[in-house]
Amino acid sequence: MDKFEKQMNFLTEAEKLKNIVRQSPLPFGRKENDVEHSWSLCLYAVVLSEYAEEGTDILKCLKMLLIHDMVEIYAGDTYLYDTEANKDREERELAAAERIFSPLGEQGAKLKGLWLEFEENKSRESRFANIMDRFQPVILNYLSEGSAWQEHGVNCRQVLEKGKEKVMKGHKNIVNYYLKIINEAVEKGWLEK
Amino acid sequence: MDKFEKQMNFLTEAEKLKNIVRQSPLPFGRKENDVEHSWSLCLYAVVLSEYAEEGTDILKCLKMLLIHDMVEIYAGDTYLYDTEANKDREERELAAAERIFSPLGEQGAKLKGLWLEFEENKSRESRFANIMDRFQPVILNYLSEGSAWQEHGVNCRQVLEKGKEKVMKGHKNIVNYYLKIINEAVEKGWLEK
Repeated sequence: MDKFEKQMNFLTEAEKLKNIVRQSPLPFGRKENDVEHSWSLCLYAVVLSEYAEEGTDILKCLKMLLIHDMVEIYAGDTYLYDTEANKDREERELAAAERIFSPLGEQGAKLKGLWLEFEENKSRESRFANIMDRFQPVILNYLSEGSAWQEHGVNCRQVLEKGKEKVMKGHKNIVNYYLKIINEAVEKGWLEK
Repeated sequence: MDKFEKQMNFLTEAEKLKNIVRQSPLPFGRKENDVEHSWSLCLYAVVLSEYAEEGTDILKCLKMLLIHDMVEIYAGDTYLYDTEANKDREERELAAAERIFSPLGEQGAKLKGLWLEFEENKSRESRFANIMDRFQPVILNYLSEGSAWQEHGVNCRQVLEKGKEKVMKGHKNIVNYYLKIINEAVEKGWLEK
């Protein structure tokens, strides 16, 4: 198989990500899938790029966000607040990363590297990408009056705990907006205290 | 309303794009929506970037592809082969672009500019983006054994006509693959001659 065919096979395999449903509810009812989530994070990153740390490479952020959930094609979506399922998440996702990216050779190694960088959350680009990844689901939950929070019995303390090392390290405009809507959700009875 | 709130309102309005269904079929049955299509084009652009014209700014391509269908939130999806609906498409989409982008002020003007640049298909970045936009639906149709082509009575001549000023101007690897799968689709009886 030549390189171009391998690239097309990878793009075809990627279609499966459109079938991995997340817990985040869309404002018009159904839950969103991984691809819709990834597109949103990219759009967030473009629109909010002025709030990234100075020198952040937005192209790198976008590549990272486009592929950050591709491992879930094989590993499935692990709900952030599911403690049990999160125990072996790392292991399952590492095996899935190998399976999805390795057929692409050198190019696949680079994509796998971007995924690992996102997971480690240490570089400027991964920090900004992870802020988006924790910020957007809270917005979606707020827009649907807390439906997924209620479905899974998630409370305010848990939401804030998950945002601590991510959203809360972001630009003050993002932090303020995030805290404002969480407060509003609690006040409106959409999110338990 | 402050700038950040306007940006968040724009991102919230963007959620509606997840509800605009296209004609392209996914390999597992349902048709894809505009957001899924846009994510795919971004992933195509990243994976196939080596086949873009020299000097193509991939970040610009990605921004363009992320937002290229946002006008359809108000203007709806116009099927490529629907001659009647395409008559006033330009007018409808221009009004929609004004409505979606103008609340973002200067940033919105830039996004609207990117959308217009995509539509005009004159710059390097828009040429590469438009190649992806005509290439990916053909792949999806092929993967689903031509279901949308058959549903709408589209034939090979029409597909090739639509690709003429776009996919056919791309890198030879893209052109060859495109022609190969169209040929195969005809041979297999998935696409009428």
